[in-house]
Order: sequence, then C-alpha cells, then structure tokens
Amino acid sequence: MNYGIVLKVLGILLIIESTLMAPSLLISFNDRGIDFYPFLITIVITLLIGMILSRKKSKDNMIGAKDGLAIVALGWLTISVLGALPLFLSGSTPTYIDAFFEIVSGFTTTGSSLIDNIETLPRGILFWRSFTHWIGGMGILVFTIALLPALGIGGFQIYKAESPGPIAGKMAPRIKDTAKILYVTYLGITIFEVILLLLGKMSIFESLVHTFGTVGTGGFGIKGESIGYYKSSYIHIVISIFMVLSGISFSLYYTIYRGRIREIFKNEELRLYLGIIVVSTMLIGINLYISNYGNIMNSLRDSFFQVSSIITTTGYSTADFNLWPSFSKGILLILMLIGGSAGSTAGGIKVIRILVMFKLIKREILKIFHPRAVIPIKNDGHTLSNDVIAGIYSFIALYIVIFAFSTLAISLEGVDLVTASTSVIATLSNIGPGLSLVGPSSSFSLYSGASKLLLSFLMLLGRI
Amino acid sequence: MNYGIVLKVLGILLIIESTLMAPSLLISFNDRGIDFYPFLITIVITLLIGMILSRKKSKDNMIGAKDGLAIVALGWLTISVLGALPLFLSGSTPTYIDAFFEIVSGFTTTGSSLIDNIETLPRGILFWRSFTHWIGGMGILVFTIALLPALGIGGFQIYKAESPGPIAGKMAPRIKDTAKILYVTYLGITIFEVILLLLGKMSIFESLVHTFGTVGTGGFGIKGESIGYYKSSYIHIVISIFMVLSGISFSLYYTIYRGRIREIFKNEELRLYLGIIVVSTMLIGINLYISNYGNIMNSLRDSFFQVSSIITTTGYSTADFNLWPSFSKGILLILMLIGGSAGSTAGGIKVIRILVMFKLIKREILKIFHPRAVIPIKNDGHTLSNDVIAGIYSFIALYIVIFAFSTLAISLEGVDLVTASTSVIATLSNIGPGLSLVGPSSSFSLYSGASKLLLSFLMLLGRI
Repeated sequence: MNYGIVLKVLGILLIIESTLMAPSLLISFNDRGIDFYPFLITIVITLLIGMILSRKKSKDNMIGAKDGLAIVALGWLTISVLGALPLFLSGSTPTYIDAFFEIVSGFTTTGSSLIDNIETLPRGILFWRSFTHWIGGMGILVFTIALLPALGIGGFQIYKAESPGPIAGKMAPRIKDTAKILYVTYLGITIFEVILLLLGKMSIFESLVHTFGTVGTGGFGIKGESIGYYKSSYIHIVISIFMVLSGISFSLYYTIYRGRIREIFKNEELRLYLGIIVVSTMLIGINLYISNYGNIMNSLRDSFFQVSSIITTTGYSTADFNLWPSFSKGILLILMLIGGSAGSTAGGIKVIRILVMFKLIKREILKIFHPRAVIPIKNDGHTLSNDVIAGIYSFIALYIVIFAFSTLAISLEGVDLVTASTSVIATLSNIGPGLSLVGPSSSFSLYSGASKLLLSFLMLLGRI
Repeated sequence: MNYGIVLKVLGILLIIESTLMAPSLLISFNDRGIDFYPFLITIVITLLIGMILSRKKSKDNMIGAKDGLAIVALGWLTISVLGALPLFLSGSTPTYIDAFFEIVSGFTTTGSSLIDNIETLPRGILFWRSFTHWIGGMGILVFTIALLPALGIGGFQIYKAESPGPIAGKMAPRIKDTAKILYVTYLGITIFEVILLLLGKMSIFESLVHTFGTVGTGGFGIKGESIGYYKSSYIHIVISIFMVLSGISFSLYYTIYRGRIREIFKNEELRLYLGIIVVSTMLIGINLYISNYGNIMNSLRDSFFQVSSIITTTGYSTADFNLWPSFSKGILLILMLIGGSAGSTAGGIKVIRILVMFKLIKREILKIFHPRAVIPIKNDGHTLSNDVIAGIYSFIALYIVIFAFSTLAISLEGVDLVTASTSVIATLSNIGPGLSLVGPSSSFSLYSGASKLLLSFLMLLGRI
C-alpha cells in the first residue's frame, strides 16, 4: 500500500472541504448567527490539517486497488468527522455523536435526522447540512464512475466495460471527460431546479437548500413537515419530477446531449425504472383514494411525490406516509429496497440489479421446460458474463445479510420490528425516514449512541 | 404431454389416499362420532374416482419432464380437494374453502390453522388432520429425491449429481432403493418418537398425532395452546430433539446406517444447521432471561423448543413467542426464511442454499483485494458449477419476489405489515404460525376467502 499518496489525496480532500464551508460562513456572518465562530474554527482546523497532509511526499503517483479503497473509505470518514464540528460547536446537536450522525447522513445523501426542532437551527447550519447532500451526490458520481470501476470492485462491473484497463496515477483522458460531462449535467439540473422553485415563490435560500436535497437525493429540509410545509402543488410536482430525474443514470443525459434520443427509450433500466414509478404511483394513488384520503388528484399527487422520493432514496415527504394503509406502506418498503438507477446519486440495490435478477428468474423457469437450453442473460443487447451475474447476486445477498443482522442489533433497543427494520433500510439504502417510530414525522433521536454509530456506519456502507 | 399416464398416476394416488383415510374411519366408528359418515362418503367417492382414472390406457409408460411436473402439481391439488371433504361434511369448518386451506396446510406440512376451537373437533378429524402431515412429509421425500431431480428442476440440482441420467418410465433400481431406505428411516424415527412420548405419559392417540406433526415438520396439534398444554419438560425436550432430527437431510441417516459416522461431522450443511440452532437458542435464551422471562433453564428450554420448531418449519409452540422481545422475534423471523436442511421434510429456503450464498459473498469480498483470482465454490469438497450457483441464487431471488408480492396482496386486507408478511412467510415456508395477528395463539380465520386461497396456493408452491 502506498500510504503517501493516500494521505496526500486525503489532504487535498480536506482543503476542498474547508472551501466548501465558505458559503455557510458567509450566511452566518450575514445573519450575525451563533454559528459564525463554529464555522470559522472548523474551516481553520480543516484547512490546517489538509495543508499538512497534502505536503506528504509519496514514492510515486500510482494509485493501486487497495489505495483507492483506502481513499474512499477514509475520505468519507475524515470529511464527516470534521464536517460535524460546526453542528456540535454551535449547539445544534446535544452530543458530538449526534452531529456526526447528521453529517454522515448528509454526505451519504441519506437524509435521516436526529434533530427534532429543525426550525430553530441557524441558517448557516441549515445550509451546510443540505450542502453536504449536494457535495455527497457529486462526490459519489466521481468516485463510482471515475474511480471505482477501475478497481474492479464487485457490483460495479457493469461499468467496467465502459472504462477498459486499470487507471494508475492520473486519470485517463476519457475518464476525466466523463467526469466533466457529469459535473456539467449535475450543475445544469441544479440551476434548472433552483430557477423553477424561485418561480414557485420560494426564497433563494429555500430554493437552494431544497434543490441540494433533491439532486443529491438526500432529503434534508428546513421544516418539521418537510416539503409538506409548502402548500403549493406546483412546488410538489417540480420537486417530484426533479427527484425522478436525479434517479436516472447520469450517463443517459450524455446520450441525450449527443442527440441519441432513440437510445434512451431502448434503455432497459430506464424503462423499468419509469415503469415501476408509474405503476407504484397508480397503485398507491388508488389505494389512498379508496381509503378516503381525499380526491383522486390529491391522492395521485401525494402518491407520485412519495414514490419518487422513496425510489430515488431522497426521503422528502408531503404527507405522513406512516399513517397510510398497509398496502401503500408495503409498496414503499419494496421501493426502499430497490432504489434508483445505477450511475445516479440514488442509493438502494439499484434497478439494474433487480432487472438482471428478474431475467435470471425467468431463465430458471424456462429451464424447467427446456432443461438443456443455454440462455444468455443480456442487458441492452450485451451478454453479461457469469462473473458479472455472480457479482450482482452476491451484492443483493450481502445487502440482505447486512440488513438482517443490523435489524437484530437495532431491535436490542426494544423497538418494534417495523421500526428496527425500516431504520436499517432507511440508512443502508440512504433514504432517510423509515416507518413506525422513525416515520417521516419523527426523528432518529430515540436511539442510543451505539445504535447511532451503527446506523452511521450503515449509511457509509450503503454509499460505498 | 402423455395425458394417459398422468391420469393413471393420479388415479393410483387417489386409491392410496382412500386407504389412508381408513384409520380415521375406524376412530370415528369407535367414538360413534359425527365424522363417521363424512369419512365413509369421502372414502367411497375417492376410491371410485381413483378406480376410474387408474384404468385409463396410455400409449406408453414413459414419464417425461412435463408429465412429472403435471403429476406433482395436480397430485397435490387433487388429494387436497378430496381430503378436505370430511372436514367440511362433518361441520368442522364453516366453509369448504376453510376445509381446503386446512388440508392443504396439512399435506404441505405447514400447520397454519383456521380453526379457533380445535379442542371441540371429533377425534377422527383430528387424526386425519395430523396424519396428512405424516403423509405429506413422506410424499415430499419421494417426490423431491426420487422424481424431481430427474426433471432437472431448478434448485434441486445439488441432488442431480447423485442421480445421473434421466429416469423414464419405471424408477431406476438405485432410486427405488434410496426411496426404500428413506421410508424405513422415516418409519423408524416415527416409531421411536411415539415410544418416547408414551413414556412421557401421553395417550397413544396423543403420541401418534404429535409424532405425525413432528416428523412431518407440520405442527398441527389438538390443543389451543399447542405443546404448551403439556406441562412436562420431558415432552418439550423430546419433541424439540425430534424436530431437530426431522430437519436433517435424510440421506445422512443412510450414511450413519452404512457406518460412516465420520462423514456426518464433515457435512458442512449439517454443521451450519446445528450451529444456527445452538447460537439462536443461546441468543434467544439470554434475551428472554434478561427480559425477566423466568429462570435461565426455562428460558433456554423454551428458546430451544421454539428455535427447533421454527427452523424446521414445524410450528409447534410451548409459549406465545409473539409476546417475546423484538430481538428474539427478529431471530425467529430469520429462521423462518432459512428453513431446514435440503432432503428433509422441512421447508424454507434451506440451509444449503444459505451456505452457498455465504460462500459467494465471501468470494466477492476476496475479489475486491484479488481482482483476478479464480475462486471455485465448493460444497463438501465438490466444486459447484456456475449453473448450480445461478439456480440457487435464482431460487432465493424468486422466493423473495413471491414473498414481496404476496405480502402486498395480503396487506389489502387492512392488516398491519408484520401480520401480512409473516402470514406469507408462515405459509410459503410451510411453518404454520406467524407473528402479530397470526401469532401462535391466534389462527388465520381473520382472512377473506380470496386470501385463504392465495395462502393455500403459497403453501403448495412452498412445497414444490
């Protein structure tokens, strides 16, 4: 392992983080907020550590597979440890563990919160909290698409085909270009949503904060009722649509940019993703309507919002879905596990893996009738190798195993099984709220420090 | 498809069924019970249909893959349709659908019941109900081990290695021998348990009924409190041990018979199976003890009983585990999904598939550090082919998909998600009781006819 390069990259990461805190410092300065000094102190500390680390000399500039893994794992941890400081120093959270949980939840674009009285927090803190979603969403795109495939990490092998050969030292031009296109797309969607929300009579601060939460598929808001605070259907629908857009593989936007619109409609993952959203919205909408929830338009609007929010693992809510009928809650639970498309900022198992799983099930059923048939598994016309298939299945299996054991650990707190299991799904899939005691109108503040650390770890794990 | 041979085999099956009802007829005659005529009528009808069908002429005696599937599927359905008649005719269940659910639950060795006032039923009916467990357990062994592997059915491929080549027409001598050994083992275990229960001061009727429920891993009892009615620790422990024995692959008993004791301890599935039982018993026992359940011996005894009952998908209970702490219930839920060993009468996903799943996960993790390594997946020293692995994974995936969709359908009844999901697991894994509203002290009588039929279908599916 090349320790020098690992520390050097971590140092650069911290310098970047300290500059990313500047907008919050400005807001707190403007507001004469109690969070001004906490931000100032944190920025100085982060910058200092970053500068010391980045001066480290390394033997060479080769980043091997193990170094890459170390950078990703330590990187998330380090920026969270330091990023949590302003929350703790400003007294926004009672303990440092709470602040750490909150910021991990931010960077991993989870959106689970421990803070019960969110509306009393200073605006600098609120901005930083939501901004971590945007940074996290952006960071994920770089790490997964530009760095991880080169490491041959299980589950990401589908992208391997697109980026042949290992990447050592500096990024290859092609990967660099890809990252650039992704950033431009990300920024474009962000600006577009901010403008549309401003048109919906949100303030510039509110528009920015909610856009960060949407495009990063995070879900931190600034109101106790989440998006439900805003009574405008226009705002609900704008955010719904942008959540759906943020759950689509970003490489597809590049395909649009190159004018290959036809390819988009042929993309199997996209079709399944949109299909799941449409069917789930209809089913929940009808289920709500029959349960005397309101008129059919309101039922469908709230259903569409919640389906988009959950499948993209954002976690915003316009209604307390914990009170919805079991059938609707059951569908949301399944969507929590599925998650968004591969190559988007959304978490979960990912639609592409579900798609391959269904194809494999179909093949096994066909084999009952044609025992000797050899049926290849294809995705968008390309045959998937046995290795890729085993990787996908093992990912799903590992996901379920981690889910089961973590639920057991959390259940030791004495909460009911729905609370325990949805706490785990909500963090592992980077969604935010769960059901029962951790529903959209409650927070994770009921848990002990140990459980908060476990759930923080699950959020990080879900992201990597 | 060879319709002639399918109908002929079904006819033989019905003739066998009618003779298997004879003991119940004798009991009802002896008791002067209201169930005498119901049994007499059913036996006559079943025998008549059986004789008509068995006279069918077929072109040849070849049973192809599709014929075999048709026999298995139609066979279970037909014997259930007719086997339900005595329950309905004697007024033991209010509707025919209830009687059908109850008998499907019997033949599939599930043990879920719709009958709330079980202690008022006539003894002939009680005997028949439990006897279907014993028949179902026996039938499963023949169908899965002797017939299905030859059909190349997904999920059973592990056994394929043991029975090379397709089996057409009559059973090959080797398979016939295997079936004979299995039957002798099954009968031996049955007799052994009956004797031990008689020594525990149970009546001959009670000993027989509970032995049927144990060795068939069914779980139908004759008391509202299940085995909890009997206050003898001796009886609890005897039944616990026989449940564990019934969840072991029956081919291992043949290995013992041939004197290869050493091989037994090397068997990876057996070691994992026993390991899971020991660890789960300890964890639940300690969890109960800490929750002021009683002294440590009582906690461990009840824990051992419930762990054995759930992992072998029997479903007997000595305590209302629905009232246990979440941690204990969580472990039981996981055991419900795992199930017993392959080649036993127990249902569920099966330990061997879980074992292979863990090995695959381990391989994927190793691959992160050694991307180019080729690591074969072995079981008891034999390397598993990619086809077998894909089959195992697809089975687990299909299981989870069916579980998810069925839970949604059941949740339309308006019950909570724990009730809906555990109703599905309890029937699909052929366990019996679930949690919440379908816990061990309740029955499935709350559901509508449509849900009862869906759950009946899941029981059949879980068995095939």
